[in-house]
Amino acid sequence: MNAFFEHPHRRYNPLAGEWVLVSPHRAKRPWQGQVEDAVVPDMLAHDPECYLCAGNTRINGEKNPDYESTFVFDNDFAALTEDAPNERFEDGLLLAEGESGICRVICFSPRHDLTLARMAVADIAKVVDTWVAQYEELGVHPDINHVQIFENRGAMMGCSNPHPHGQIWASRSLPNEAAKETENQRAYYEKHGRPLLMAYLEQELALGERILFENDGFVVLVPYWAVWPFETMVLPKRHIRSMEEMTEAERNDLAEALSKITIRYDNLFKTSFPYSMGFHQRPTDGHDHDEWVMHAHFLPPLLRSATVKKFMVGFELLGSPQRDLTAEQAAQRLLELSEKHYLND
Amino acid sequence: MNAFFEHPHRRYNPLAGEWVLVSPHRAKRPWQGQVEDAVVPDMLAHDPECYLCAGNTRINGEKNPDYESTFVFDNDFAALTEDAPNERFEDGLLLAEGESGICRVICFSPRHDLTLARMAVADIAKVVDTWVAQYEELGVHPDINHVQIFENRGAMMGCSNPHPHGQIWASRSLPNEAAKETENQRAYYEKHGRPLLMAYLEQELALGERILFENDGFVVLVPYWAVWPFETMVLPKRHIRSMEEMTEAERNDLAEALSKITIRYDNLFKTSFPYSMGFHQRPTDGHDHDEWVMHAHFLPPLLRSATVKKFMVGFELLGSPQRDLTAEQAAQRLLELSEKHYLND
Ligand SMILES: O=P(O)(O)O[C@H]1O[C@H](CO)[C@@H](O)[C@H](O)[C@H]1O
Ligand SMILES: O=P(O)(O)O[C@H]1O[C@H](CO)[C@@H](O)[C@H](O)[C@H]1O
Repeated sequence: MNAFFEHPHRRYNPLAGEWVLVSPHRAKRPWQGQVEDAVVPDMLAHDPECYLCAGNTRINGEKNPDYESTFVFDNDFAALTEDAPNERFEDGLLLAEGESGICRVICFSPRHDLTLARMAVADIAKVVDTWVAQYEELGVHPDINHVQIFENRGAMMGCSNPHPHGQIWASRSLPNEAAKETENQRAYYEKHGRPLLMAYLEQELALGERILFENDGFVVLVPYWAVWPFETMVLPKRHIRSMEEMTEAERNDLAEALSKITIRYDNLFKTSFPYSMGFHQRPTDGHDHDEWVMHAHFLPPLLRSATVKKFMVGFELLGSPQRDLTAEQAAQRLLELSEKHYLND
Repeated sequence: MNAFFEHPHRRYNPLAGEWVLVSPHRAKRPWQGQVEDAVVPDMLAHDPECYLCAGNTRINGEKNPDYESTFVFDNDFAALTEDAPNERFEDGLLLAEGESGICRVICFSPRHDLTLARMAVADIAKVVDTWVAQYEELGVHPDINHVQIFENRGAMMGCSNPHPHGQIWASRSLPNEAAKETENQRAYYEKHGRPLLMAYLEQELALGERILFENDGFVVLVPYWAVWPFETMVLPKRHIRSMEEMTEAERNDLAEALSKITIRYDNLFKTSFPYSMGFHQRPTDGHDHDEWVMHAHFLPPLLRSATVKKFMVGFELLGSPQRDLTAEQAAQRLLELSEKHYLND
C-alpha cells in the first residue's frame, strides 16, 4: 500500500458527495468504553411469543397465515400513512410538507431461528422475488415516488425481534440519501454518458483490491469511501436501474451474493453480525433515470469484536464520519474468512 | 397545533440543507427492543484509576498537573496528526487527500464526579474561556482551517470515561457538516444581506413555541427541524461569528445557558443524560465569513426513558432521519421540568 494511505487522509464518496476521514494508525487505541450484549442466537424454529412467526396473532388482533417462504403485511406502527395531507407549510425559515407513504414488514422465512446468513440461497431468492414484487406494486402507486427496502438486523441496530425480517418505507418524496445519489449519478451521466456506478465497478474489478465476491450477475466489494468499519456494497455487473430489470438468473446471483457476504460477516466475530442493509434504486416517479444503477449497502457497526462497535458520535455527527482502518484492510480481513458459516462447519 | 402537524410530514433544515421525517402518531408504539444500561453516577471526587483526574499518570507515562479548573492536553490516540502529507491522490473515481490536524482533550473540572449539568455556572464559564483560548490558538495555525469543539457525554455516546471532558479536532479541511452550514449560510447572506441564523432566531423568539431559555446573550431552543428526540440549539442574540467575539458578559451568559439546558436534560429521565454536543462557528481559513453565526448543537439519543434510545438505523441511514414526536412536543416536555437539578433538590 502507498505510504500516503498509512497517514490520516480523507476519501471522497462520489455517490453521496461526501467525505470520510480515515485514521489508519488509530486502530491501536485501547477500548475502555461501552461493550454491547453478545448476541445469543435464538434456537426456537417457531416461537409462540413472536408476532412474526407463522400462525401467530399480531398486536392488532390479526393472525399471520401459515406462510412457507415469505410473508408481507402493512406495518402495525407505520411511520408513514396514506392519509397525510399533500400540503406545504411555509413561514419564513420554517418549511414543512405533508409526507404520505406506506410501510410494510417482510418476513424472510417462517423459521424464527434463521437469518440471511444461515438461509439457503434458494430461500434468499424467494426474498429477492418478494422485494421485486413489492418494488413493482408500490412503485406504480401514483403517490409513491420512492421505495426504500431495508433490513435492520440485530438489537444493536434497533431491531426488536430476531425473526428474520425486513421493512419497506415507500414515500411520496425522495429521502435525503436517494436525492443525493440521484443528483450525483445524474451529473456524472450527463458529463460522461455512462452511469457512475458502472464506471466505478469497472475500476474496482480492474484493481481487485476491495472485491469480496463475484458471480455472473453481481459483485460484493468494500467501497473505497466506506464509512462503517466493515461496510460493503453489492453491485450488478450490467446496467440494472431497478430490481424488476433483473433476469431470473440475476435474481439468483443476487441471492448468492447476499448469502456470501452475510456468512463472512457472521464469521468475522463468530456472532450473528448486526447491520442495517438496504437497496438504493431508481425513484418510481415515472422518469427513466438512466443514470441510476441499483445497489445494496450493508452498514454494520461492529469494529473490534462481537461486542465493541464503532460510535458515530461527536466529531462524526458534527463534522465528518471517521474510521480507524482503511477499506483495503477491512476487505483483507473479510477475505481471510471461511466461505462456510461457522455454525454450519 | 395546526392539524397538519399531527400527520406525518417532513421539515426542512435550511442550515444543513436536509429534510427530517416527523411521525407524530408513532410515539405510541410499544418498545420491545434493546434497552441500554442505566447510568450509575460516579461518586468519587477523585478516582485514582482515572487518566483524566489531576495528578494521575496517563497511558503514555505523562503525569497530569494538579489542575484546579480546566486542563488541556494533546489526545494520546489522535485521529488527526500534524505530519499527514498535504497531497492529493486521484485515479478515476477514487479521490483522497492527506488530512492533517491536531486533536486535544479538555478536562472540564478536576472533580471526577461532576458533569456540566452539576457544575456551577462560574466553573462552566472557565470551560468557555478554555474553548475560546483553544479556538484562537489553533485557529491561527496556518494548516488549521477548522476547529471542531465537542463533547461526547456518557457511555451510550462512545465516551469511555465519566470524568467531565470534551475534545477538539482541528483540521486542515472543512468537515462535511461545516461545509454544508457554510454554503447554506453564505447563500442566504448573499440573497438577504443578513445571517440566516439571526433571521431564524428572530422568528423563533417572535413565535415562542420552541424556546427553552433566554438571557441577555443567548437563547436555547428546540430547532424546528430537530432530528434527535430532544435535540436543542444554543444561539447568540447578536451576530457573533466565532467564540472570541463574545464579550466577558456573553461568556457568562453562554455558561448559564449550558447549565440550564443540561440540568433540564438530566431532569427529563432523572439520569445523567447522554449526548454529543459541539460548537459550529466560522472556519479559521483567514476569511471574514460574515455569513456565519456561532452556535452549539446538543444531539441526545434518549427517547422514552433513561434506557430506551432512538435508533438511527435502516431508514435513517439509507433514507432520511426520522423522529416520533414533534419539536414542539419535545420543547413542551423539556419546559415542564424543574430548573433545579434533581440531585441538588
Ligand atoms: O476519542 P474517543 O473518546 O476515544 O472516541 C469517541 O469519540 C470519537 C469522536 O467523536 C469517535 O470517533 C469514537 O468513535 C468515539 O468512541
Ligand atoms: O420499525 P422498527 O423496527 O420498530 O424500528 C426500527 O427501524 C426504524 C427504521 O429504520 C427506526 O426508525 C427505529 O428507530 C428502529 O428502532
